[in-house]
Amino acid sequence: MKINQQHFQSIWLKEDDPTCVQIIDQRHLPHQFIIEDLSSVEAVAQAIKEMHLRGAPLIGVTAAYGMYLACLEAPQGFLFDDYVEKAANHLKSTRPTAVNLAWAVDQLFETIKTTENRQEKIKLALQKAEQLKKESIERCFQIGQQGLPLIKNLSAQKNGEVINILTHCNAGWLACVDYGTATSPIYLAHDRGIKVHVWVDETRPRNQGARLTAYELGQHGIPHTVIPDNVGGHLMQHGMVDMVLVGTDRTTRKGDVANKIGTYLKALAAKDNNVPFYVALPSSTIDWSIEDGLKEIPIEKRGESEVKYIAGQHQNSIKQVLLTPSTSPAVNYAFDVTPAHLVTGLITEKGVCAASEEGLLELFGQNQQS
Amino acid sequence: MKINQQHFQSIWLKEDDPTCVQIIDQRHLPHQFIIEDLSSVEAVAQAIKEMHLRGAPLIGVTAAYGMYLACLEAPQGFLFDDYVEKAANHLKSTRPTAVNLAWAVDQLFETIKTTENRQEKIKLALQKAEQLKKESIERCFQIGQQGLPLIKNLSAQKNGEVINILTHCNAGWLACVDYGTATSPIYLAHDRGIKVHVWVDETRPRNQGARLTAYELGQHGIPHTVIPDNVGGHLMQHGMVDMVLVGTDRTTRKGDVANKIGTYLKALAAKDNNVPFYVALPSSTIDWSIEDGLKEIPIEKRGESEVKYIAGQHQNSIKQVLLTPSTSPAVNYAFDVTPAHLVTGLITEKGVCAASEEGLLELFGQNQQS
Repeated sequence: MKINQQHFQSIWLKEDDPTCVQIIDQRHLPHQFIIEDLSSVEAVAQAIKEMHLRGAPLIGVTAAYGMYLACLEAPQGFLFDDYVEKAANHLKSTRPTAVNLAWAVDQLFETIKTTENRQEKIKLALQKAEQLKKESIERCFQIGQQGLPLIKNLSAQKNGEVINILTHCNAGWLACVDYGTATSPIYLAHDRGIKVHVWVDETRPRNQGARLTAYELGQHGIPHTVIPDNVGGHLMQHGMVDMVLVGTDRTTRKGDVANKIGTYLKALAAKDNNVPFYVALPSSTIDWSIEDGLKEIPIEKRGESEVKYIAGQHQNSIKQVLLTPSTSPAVNYAFDVTPAHLVTGLITEKGVCAASEEGLLELFGQNQQS
Repeated sequence: MKINQQHFQSIWLKEDDPTCVQIIDQRHLPHQFIIEDLSSVEAVAQAIKEMHLRGAPLIGVTAAYGMYLACLEAPQGFLFDDYVEKAANHLKSTRPTAVNLAWAVDQLFETIKTTENRQEKIKLALQKAEQLKKESIERCFQIGQQGLPLIKNLSAQKNGEVINILTHCNAGWLACVDYGTATSPIYLAHDRGIKVHVWVDETRPRNQGARLTAYELGQHGIPHTVIPDNVGGHLMQHGMVDMVLVGTDRTTRKGDVANKIGTYLKALAAKDNNVPFYVALPSSTIDWSIEDGLKEIPIEKRGESEVKYIAGQHQNSIKQVLLTPSTSPAVNYAFDVTPAHLVTGLITEKGVCAASEEGLLELFGQNQQS
């Protein structure tokens, strides 16, 4: 999508150096736009772990490029696959909740093993990474196409008045490669002239909404308003939200969704106020091996400093400030699980379905083992 | 309660100057402990409006002292009452949602009108302000006494294990004069040796939880952990909260409660997970004239800069940093309404009752016109 009138994607191979991958270092957004070079599997692992980039689909594609870089680094001969396997495990360990990180890494590893030739392995790895990137863009576009009628219908019901959509965290193109997941129907609706306005949950503690979603919507020209995470319930009580639309990091076969911490609270409020609550996802984030999200999905616990400190712009530089008494402890669960019964529907690249095993099987019946 | 081992209240008459009221300027907590002199009704109005202090009970007592200062300023003769009435209206306009601000101001004005003598008016005003302060402390202590058995019972059920209590915003002694409302049962339980731990919602956008509740609990030695507002639902899903205990700025005759924005979301999560959700309140915050909180309570909308910027400590000074794209708008509703059916019980100075007209009338039947 657009940044300062120019078209960008969130990851690409450096123009004059095919051994280097470039990303937008999202830690500096919205205040500074910085492009980062990643030239080793370790750099990729660090960038994922330290969240220079985030979002399940982008993490997957980035890890795929990481596997390509691992191939460039791997020693000639019988230790090649061993090195790449260790790199794969290292990459997988960086964000345990993101299921399609592991999926993408495994895809690359399988591809690499189809040949013995080193140059061929490298070439196949790059091809596969670029293919996954292209597929990711296409999937996001399709999610937009599938979700678009939902917004169109609401718009028709309201006689073309502005449709207010609440979103949590950043399931935008910055979390993917382009279009985004939850934002894709919104971008497509806006680009087709449907009036939309987005309530952007700031999404503490890392403020992905206030920093990234607000940034990308603003850069693309979509009307939006940043709100504290506490506000959504009040807005829904007063008819100021027509639809909630969020992403997910992991969806169980029964339709439970693990998404950014706080999503569950918005789902409860949506249910209480009869506001449709949709979750947009590429099918790669469906974990067919898990039924009960609440019991089975491990929830990542991150460092307390992300709660106690926050970074922002102060006089043209980024400063980190302490928000709590220095001696008070804090906890930082990164995700929560929204049970399927609170979800109105899942928007996937193949269509919109009920958040249930039946709904998912209808769309993905043949692929459920993938 | 205690700050750095010393006993404090949140407002007092200056030791050597009875024409000056002193408060803790809470905007600087938890990083700096600053005492502010208030020597005019205008200074009091500013302090309330700009939130040097907050919390319904403390606002009420402070406004009462403001009326005393208005008497000191008022001209001799027939314009005296006129001046004081204008001051009263000015004070009332500073925070429209806080019902006992108006109540305290009216109490003072009635008292002043009982005599014609200027000195007598001033003396009565001071006496009344000090009486309201004393009553506020006593009410908070009684709220603690009434709520204590609820915590005791949970502790007994868990065989003396730690009781985890989640609270939102600051309904602590810093919001009152001493003890607090929601914190009063917690302080009393802790002081009697019952093991408690408090999950402190940071409470965006003004972070009263992270700044004030964490500070006062920490200074008094109560184990606590700061959490982003997004986390409470996840904790309740996993059995990590035994009780939610919050304050309220305004309670309707049917038991709806207007409290800090985001309270409603926690009430929904408590209901969904069978966690008891209690609201502590002095009866002065009951608005008998209102039935339906959602339809009838006006919700204060504050400036967007409170959402877009946040202040914190950076290298020993307080810095304000920008969190959002500078061009993104934000909205800032200060309160939301939790419907009575989500409230397990109301803890008042006279006892614990159901959040309903019957429950409230049982305790306050005779006084419902007050």
